[in-house]
Amino acid sequence: MTDGLPRTMRADAIENRERILAEACSAFAVDGLDVPMREIARRAGVGPATLYRHFPTKEDLATEAFTDEIGACLAIVDEGLADPDPWHGFCLVVEKICALHACNRGFTAAFVSTFPDAIDFSAVREHALQSIDELARRAKDAGHLRHDFVRDDMVLVLMANNGIVASSPDARMAASRRFAALAVQGFHVSPSPLPLTPLTPLVHSV
Amino acid sequence: MTDGLPRTMRADAIENRERILAEACSAFAVDGLDVPMREIARRAGVGPATLYRHFPTKEDLATEAFTDEIGACLAIVDEGLADPDPWHGFCLVVEKICALHACNRGFTAAFVSTFPDAIDFSAVREHALQSIDELARRAKDAGHLRHDFVRDDMVLVLMANNGIVASSPDARMAASRRFAALAVQGFHVSPSPLPLTPLTPLVHSV
Repeated sequence: MTDGLPRTMRADAIENRERILAEACSAFAVDGLDVPMREIARRAGVGPATLYRHFPTKEDLATEAFTDEIGACLAIVDEGLADPDPWHGFCLVVEKICALHACNRGFTAAFVSTFPDAIDFSAVREHALQSIDELARRAKDAGHLRHDFVRDDMVLVLMANNGIVASSPDARMAASRRFAALAVQGFHVSPSPLPLTPLTPLVHSV
Repeated sequence: MTDGLPRTMRADAIENRERILAEACSAFAVDGLDVPMREIARRAGVGPATLYRHFPTKEDLATEAFTDEIGACLAIVDEGLADPDPWHGFCLVVEKICALHACNRGFTAAFVSTFPDAIDFSAVREHALQSIDELARRAKDAGHLRHDFVRDDMVLVLMANNGIVASSPDARMAASRRFAALAVQGFHVSPSPLPLTPLTPLVHSV
């Protein structure tokens, strides 16, 4: 008898947790990280207390909600690094990461967290950016990537990619693909390179 | 005696109008077009009725608030068209328009209005985009601009430029300048051009 109740409660709790995560995923993807915790609780049909019991902070909720995106992001940079042609690997990373972020506005906001109350994905970001540094070094050595490329250019591209709006997810994805190709072209060595303004760091870990 | 009162009211009304416009300018510049009309009234220290008496719709308010930006935008495309070197004129337009929009998030939102309740700047936008078409045609003929450039690429660049966030207005302007240079490089003819995904139209007049 003492067994039955906890088991039932646990099943309820698991169901609540999953419903909260599902609502958080779709809310963050469409509206970014600004969606209030209360609104996510409302959409999941649970009270704020239940939400906060499962996820004490928005960072906890977002880290869990973006598990798939974090895995996909790290897989993309690993795939790029494994490419025997570093320029091909570099292009692949820019294109696939733009496509990944084009599906999820909140993930970009978390990834480039620049504001005091944004989510800190610093470990994932640092790993991804270190891999991009390494790939960029090889692509420069191979004579394909312009020598003034810096890691924050990748952050700049992600932010810019996040500014694209369109009337449907398909149109947004198409626009993002075109944008990524233009960005890659902008990074390619050119016989007549335009000078680039130096960047102050765009990402601030908080 | 019948003279005095109307004159006083008019002075009050002018003052209110100017305060509303000043608050709308700064609110739109920082937060984009999503700032509610009531919030603008609150910041200007007037009641909603007063705000709506001066500006019946947000479109009216934004059109007035962006008078300077509209003038600057048209001056930039005219300057580009007047340049004897069409590629130089094209680069100038991309760079200066990105810089103009980097100072004012709301202006970009109005300019690329894609949503039902966004502001319709169709006349200004159409004039600017027609000038860009003409400049692009000349820059292609001169052998500098890639042949698959379309007018919506300029809209794409403006949206992307609007996605850039930074910790200060100066850092944002620097990032925007770097981004504009990369975009121009992406548009330059290349011995190894990357194919571009076709775009569905990004701007919808509403």
